[in-house]
Amino acid sequence: MSQERFSTLLSSPTSPPRGASQYVIGADIGGTSLRLALADGSGTILGRWSASTTGIRDAALVLRRMRNGVDALLQDASLLPESLCAIAAGAPGVTDVDKGIVIATSYLMGWRDVPLREMLEAEFGVPAFIDNDVNLAALGEMKAGLAQGETDFVFLAIGTGIGAGIVVKSEIHRGSSWTAGEIGYMLVPGTSEVPVTLGEPGALESLVGGEGIKQLWQGRWNPDDTPLPRDVTATQIFDHALEGNSLAQEILQLVARTLAYAIYNISLILNSPLFVLGGGVGIHPALGNATRQVLDGREARVQPRLICSALGADAQLIGAIFLGLQMVTKQVDLADG
Amino acid sequence: MSQERFSTLLSSPTSPPRGASQYVIGADIGGTSLRLALADGSGTILGRWSASTTGIRDAALVLRRMRNGVDALLQDASLLPESLCAIAAGAPGVTDVDKGIVIATSYLMGWRDVPLREMLEAEFGVPAFIDNDVNLAALGEMKAGLAQGETDFVFLAIGTGIGAGIVVKSEIHRGSSWTAGEIGYMLVPGTSEVPVTLGEPGALESLVGGEGIKQLWQGRWNPDDTPLPRDVTATQIFDHALEGNSLAQEILQLVARTLAYAIYNISLILNSPLFVLGGGVGIHPALGNATRQVLDGREARVQPRLICSALGADAQLIGAIFLGLQMVTKQVDLADG
Repeated sequence: MSQERFSTLLSSPTSPPRGASQYVIGADIGGTSLRLALADGSGTILGRWSASTTGIRDAALVLRRMRNGVDALLQDASLLPESLCAIAAGAPGVTDVDKGIVIATSYLMGWRDVPLREMLEAEFGVPAFIDNDVNLAALGEMKAGLAQGETDFVFLAIGTGIGAGIVVKSEIHRGSSWTAGEIGYMLVPGTSEVPVTLGEPGALESLVGGEGIKQLWQGRWNPDDTPLPRDVTATQIFDHALEGNSLAQEILQLVARTLAYAIYNISLILNSPLFVLGGGVGIHPALGNATRQVLDGREARVQPRLICSALGADAQLIGAIFLGLQMVTKQVDLADG
Repeated sequence: MSQERFSTLLSSPTSPPRGASQYVIGADIGGTSLRLALADGSGTILGRWSASTTGIRDAALVLRRMRNGVDALLQDASLLPESLCAIAAGAPGVTDVDKGIVIATSYLMGWRDVPLREMLEAEFGVPAFIDNDVNLAALGEMKAGLAQGETDFVFLAIGTGIGAGIVVKSEIHRGSSWTAGEIGYMLVPGTSEVPVTLGEPGALESLVGGEGIKQLWQGRWNPDDTPLPRDVTATQIFDHALEGNSLAQEILQLVARTLAYAIYNISLILNSPLFVLGGGVGIHPALGNATRQVLDGREARVQPRLICSALGADAQLIGAIFLGLQMVTKQVDLADG
């Protein structure tokens, strides 16, 4: 089993010493996959587990799958079930962190007001914490990624869709009703102005999200013009752009320009010095480079740095583990008090 | 002399009692006018004074004019010069609040790295505080306007140009290099994508700022189509729209749609529940109503409230007075300690 220590997460001198007897689960619940990591009290990842969630819309089914994963992870690490102290999970949607409720996820899962924290606590018998997955990824980047030491930055997750995790003064900015950073509906030059129904892909998402990029390709694809197939993923399109395919390059430029406009707008509003691109589509180097070129071409009093995440898909899991460990520390604090 | 008490600003029970012997000046330095207000320690405004700054680009000249105004205000209130305890001023540009420097103002004044706080302290011999004028207006709205009691809101000042004062968790969000809220360059559907040089009116400002609105009118104006003159102000155009003039209505709709898109984008990013429209152009009821209609036509998980400022041009002055009083309290605290 791989042993990785991503960071000494809880370095506060007032924290109680953490024994190896405290274990936490970090979970990333996505529309296509469920990923888990088991970590000890020092932040060392002891094991990982993943399963498909494609087609699963019922939260209870996701939890059953999670149960299997947690059991397998504990067993592999030769740990008793009671070794587990906390669980923290990221959900792909608007999440009320205080109440522990997933208010709404995208069209893929279609959750509405799912009391996920309560369900996790009932299933695993330990304190649970939930948050939006992009917020957890931003936290992961801040604690163990390229945004370490930054007090203000924006994490942009581009996978099927797009979302932002906004960090202001070292804290996640979640907004007055938990929707801060839900930028998939943003309007920039080139996006459709036609109002869309909630749950449908938004204006920005349609041009910058992985699913939208695929559809851009399919809409322009013509077998007479290109030897490439009609069915390709967003990252494959970016690969083809790097290899010189002209249709792929055209789409890459359109995506990069639209993304650059969104970053430019966020930067004007927040004056964040750093943007971290994450998610399966977002970390493709061709996208980062092309977007940076568009940004460099615009005058701006403050040009934010744009970098690609080095943590990749681990950002969410690491953020979740961090939160899990934080909960354990609080429990210890309470026990001490 | 008018006696207004806008609010009991410093209501903290731990604040020392404020005597009537503490007086502060709040100043609003604009590209076309300089406005001052004298207030006593309880926040009662004892007098106001204003002068034109049109054509004055030199900060030292602005200060000389301010000296005249402060002397007149103190004299009118039968106060000795040494009664003045603090001065707080809003400047129309990017302002480093910590260093007390106006980094840059718009093309109207053209200031670069003006050490305004130091200049004010040298001129008046009292502690001074400076901030961006829109940030001060947001503070004024929070302390004495319709945003009282709100912890998160956005103040949009629309006069010659457009700027936003962003309040997050009851604090002004100024950004990592003091440019947060400088949204004049924002890109939304309909704005020009051509990069502009810094200092020039930005993409959004060209369609939503007072000067840009005038130019929209002049660009479409034809004496054969309308009995109205070519030279009208933005607010006159909105008045004509209310009276049924079709060109004016067309321009109002374009401005409202563009402004609604900007508000929509800011709302997606920040999830602020309240937007307050201020500034000479922004408080025109026709603009608020038309913008609200566009926003209502878009699906949004969270529809922010959009209201017009009731303080109007007083917002900046009240914000400045509040900061001045805060400084006096700190002085007293220090003296007590």
